[in-house]
Amino acid sequence: MNLTIIKIGGNIIDHPEALPHFLDLFARFPGQKILVHGGGAMATQMAKELGIPTQMHQGRRITSPEMLKIATMVYAGWINKQMVAGLQQRGCSAIGLSGADANLIPAHKRPVTDIDYGEVGDVTPHEINTGVISMFLFKELVPVVCSITHDGQGRLLNTNADTIASALAMALAPFYHTRLIYCFEQKGVLSDAQNPDSVIPLITRKSYLKLKEEGVVSGGMIPKLDTAYQALEQGVKEVYIKHALHLTDRVESLLILGT
Amino acid sequence: MNLTIIKIGGNIIDHPEALPHFLDLFARFPGQKILVHGGGAMATQMAKELGIPTQMHQGRRITSPEMLKIATMVYAGWINKQMVAGLQQRGCSAIGLSGADANLIPAHKRPVTDIDYGEVGDVTPHEINTGVISMFLFKELVPVVCSITHDGQGRLLNTNADTIASALAMALAPFYHTRLIYCFEQKGVLSDAQNPDSVIPLITRKSYLKLKEEGVVSGGMIPKLDTAYQALEQGVKEVYIKHALHLTDRVESLLILGT
Repeated sequence: MNLTIIKIGGNIIDHPEALPHFLDLFARFPGQKILVHGGGAMATQMAKELGIPTQMHQGRRITSPEMLKIATMVYAGWINKQMVAGLQQRGCSAIGLSGADANLIPAHKRPVTDIDYGEVGDVTPHEINTGVISMFLFKELVPVVCSITHDGQGRLLNTNADTIASALAMALAPFYHTRLIYCFEQKGVLSDAQNPDSVIPLITRKSYLKLKEEGVVSGGMIPKLDTAYQALEQGVKEVYIKHALHLTDRVESLLILGT
Repeated sequence: MNLTIIKIGGNIIDHPEALPHFLDLFARFPGQKILVHGGGAMATQMAKELGIPTQMHQGRRITSPEMLKIATMVYAGWINKQMVAGLQQRGCSAIGLSGADANLIPAHKRPVTDIDYGEVGDVTPHEINTGVISMFLFKELVPVVCSITHDGQGRLLNTNADTIASALAMALAPFYHTRLIYCFEQKGVLSDAQNPDSVIPLITRKSYLKLKEEGVVSGGMIPKLDTAYQALEQGVKEVYIKHALHLTDRVESLLILGT
């Protein structure tokens, strides 16, 4: 059976016109599906209004206990429930979940090395509670999973949404023909950063290494694609990188292992 | 099969020592169970910090769109996920839900009469999605339901948590031997407001009417007990009013229909 795990980026969540459009596309998307999201700028904005400083280290957020509380409120609360209500409106029976719910995604607080990321959880695919997800899918409930996890000891943790999407895909790959779609604000991986239409339609692992070497793929796209190839190695059939508003169009970069 | 629906009040949620104690008691509570909660003072506090005015009418909150957002963040986000993680820690596989999730609790925006309560939803027991709740209970998942509902048209709504608890109890009464427990900050209904130990152990509908007439039951206790008797009329077997930290003790007021 086909299963598609779709991760949407914060830029769609923040956009009052784009989100309903995306929800239309997602609700109509055929087959079994799971939506994964983090948050947009709202958590940062709320932290600012509440006078809580946003700490970053090399482009990654450090999650203080105060920031975790805000992330949980924004991701698991407002964004998750807004999207669930929006999908219900569209005839798609969504169920919003954090990693704590039904012990869906156990995580481990990231160990402190030279840097303490704070309330951040690392996940491993084999710990994911695939039974409960399969039950939801079987009952035609569409999981909408936010990027909050827990350690099983009562502690909520913040986990990267790309990581959650790929961990879910890897965990479910033995049971479904699993595809992973990373939606973001471009039509795919671009060969020319200045040209939004220069989408590279097919990327093999070999061509990915070349694109990295040549600097065509750089910055935040590298961890996204590294995670994608890890998922492919673990049995995920295909990974797509595409624009959230082109979810059902054939405008995309398809990532495969083959040469 | 026995089913107990337990509603906890905001005073427990707000109390950093009482909440873990309550979660211990709830996790050990025997039989099928559902936890229902609203929020405590946190939503009001957060609104204050964000400069959003709290509007009240005759002791009832008027829910502006800004306040609904905060309520959703606090109830469905932080409080719900904190309690779910705390129950997971205690070996109780909880699943946090709003009324939008799996279309659990459809609601209708309260019509504007002489007063506009804003983003407030009224619920009717026969619209509750009992199938999905039964599925969770069958799968040994414990629903933790927050007092946010939806109208099926993409709109989230704020609903009184006491009302949600009694509506769930009434909806599930045909399928389970259903009991409803309202936990609050007193040991039960008191015959003497000045004496916290003056709990009235058994209240029939007839004795309730007498207690109301005599003014022994007054204020906020009246809508709570009215809702309780409504639930009993609709097939709920017993309603208890008791202290959250005496959940498993026989210190309580038991409400029954009989004379």
